[in-house]
Amino acid sequence: MKSTKETLPSWHEGKAKQRIIEFVAQVTTPGSEFFVPEAERIATFDNDGTLWVEKPILAQLAFYKRQLFDADVLANVNTFKRMLNWLKNALFDVIDLFKMLLAYLHSGLTTDEYRANVSQWIKQAKHPRFDCLYTELTYLPMLELLDYLSAHGFSNYIVSGGTANFIRPWSERIYKISADRIIGSSVKTRLAKRNGELAVKLEPIPFFFDYRSGKVLGIERALAKRPIAAFGNSLGDVEMLRWARTKTQSLCMLIHHTDEVREYKYQPDPWYYFGKSTLKYAQELKWQVVDMKKDWKHIFYSNK
Amino acid sequence: MKSTKETLPSWHEGKAKQRIIEFVAQVTTPGSEFFVPEAERIATFDNDGTLWVEKPILAQLAFYKRQLFDADVLANVNTFKRMLNWLKNALFDVIDLFKMLLAYLHSGLTTDEYRANVSQWIKQAKHPRFDCLYTELTYLPMLELLDYLSAHGFSNYIVSGGTANFIRPWSERIYKISADRIIGSSVKTRLAKRNGELAVKLEPIPFFFDYRSGKVLGIERALAKRPIAAFGNSLGDVEMLRWARTKTQSLCMLIHHTDEVREYKYQPDPWYYFGKSTLKYAQELKWQVVDMKKDWKHIFYSNK
Repeated sequence: MKSTKETLPSWHEGKAKQRIIEFVAQVTTPGSEFFVPEAERIATFDNDGTLWVEKPILAQLAFYKRQLFDADVLANVNTFKRMLNWLKNALFDVIDLFKMLLAYLHSGLTTDEYRANVSQWIKQAKHPRFDCLYTELTYLPMLELLDYLSAHGFSNYIVSGGTANFIRPWSERIYKISADRIIGSSVKTRLAKRNGELAVKLEPIPFFFDYRSGKVLGIERALAKRPIAAFGNSLGDVEMLRWARTKTQSLCMLIHHTDEVREYKYQPDPWYYFGKSTLKYAQELKWQVVDMKKDWKHIFYSNK
Repeated sequence: MKSTKETLPSWHEGKAKQRIIEFVAQVTTPGSEFFVPEAERIATFDNDGTLWVEKPILAQLAFYKRQLFDADVLANVNTFKRMLNWLKNALFDVIDLFKMLLAYLHSGLTTDEYRANVSQWIKQAKHPRFDCLYTELTYLPMLELLDYLSAHGFSNYIVSGGTANFIRPWSERIYKISADRIIGSSVKTRLAKRNGELAVKLEPIPFFFDYRSGKVLGIERALAKRPIAAFGNSLGDVEMLRWARTKTQSLCMLIHHTDEVREYKYQPDPWYYFGKSTLKYAQELKWQVVDMKKDWKHIFYSNK
């Protein structure tokens, strides 16, 4: 691996790398017709499958599975039975995620406790195939891209279908993205007392679903700004990329999972989806498709 | 008025000013037992009545009243009739605000259009008593406080019962607080097409009410951090101040409107509220009460 002084060293020379460098030059060169002031240099990134591995199951789902088999939750037999039933009938990642989330939250956790549980889990949980920490399965080329954009005055945001509180405990350390720049799905919360002090408790009621058009609404609600660069890998990211593209100059990238040897090979759309495909959108709207097999020298941070 | 090099020049010497300076010294002095790293130096400010004038009516309410008499909305006679009825029966500021908001939004505005309307209004609307711009009726001592905290590594956030999009168009210019640091009430939004491009439209359905415990939940949802300094002036801010106080070292301030000559004189609680009073909380929890008449040399930015 070459010196990190080189621009985007884990990217092979090619259209994708070139497009990134050209775009950044265009929007950061004063006097350029596409110049964008720093305050408007917003870049939004999907998390699962865009910044780190999402197969064989979403990390957040692995976390809930682990938590659910812990003693505290097992004590609640009814919840456990319902859980087993769900697991048996599990079909769709995202629906699973929400069902498990809701069951997990029946235990009446505060947001602080939830984040503490995530912190603890992420420090030791291993990926079933690669046998290393999930945070080591972040994509090295994307970490380089985050740094590259930061260095050019961009503000990076994560816009995840998972919950913000699953990402916040480790996002600063791994992505250099602070807790206030994580936009995600959420459940309702309420103010309660815990040990005589006010605390925020999670409720088993969905509040906001940060997926497909929800990603656009989540960004708009948090920032009131439209990204000029957006990165995704699946159907859930289509609207975010479409929205970013309505800016005069923008960089929209679709990370395409094409490498079954070094990672996984799969399509951006779930098998049960029959609408206009994500790759069709990419083609029509001229998004830059990143072919992981061809465009990336290294895949994982752990390859470093 | 003395040189702005002086710390908080518009504050009279006294307990309130002393408390601010002591607190900032405690949390920013490395090695102090109360030292707080910059990332955790979160300060949250209510807007109406804390950073600018809120009488005789909330600025956002004045904005809606103006907008509703504009031709576009008058065309919708049904909405207009309903509005007149509401105006006639108007009793409570906050309920009014939401009713008017909902009616206004029936016109199908996009968030961009809404913010453009606010921008236009705020540049020329005059306060009925002081006959100057609303932005000139921001409190000079509080603007100094925002600067003082920023200079000491704090991140300032606005946490308003009004909508975030009413404040965002001018918050950077007036408060030096960027759009992503405005937490407020909101209505539902949806992704729609406007002139062939994706746009976010406002829906006449309340989504989040950033008032009382909602202020805590709003901060927690956006930041996942607890403020160490919180500033309010009314019942709507009680929970936010209570929550900030559960930190080891914190600065909780209640701006008390005591100056009928230079501004207005009124209690923190609405007349129809019979619960534990805000001033009682302030006393029990040792919040610093700022007596506007005694503690502030100047009230408004326009006095400068």
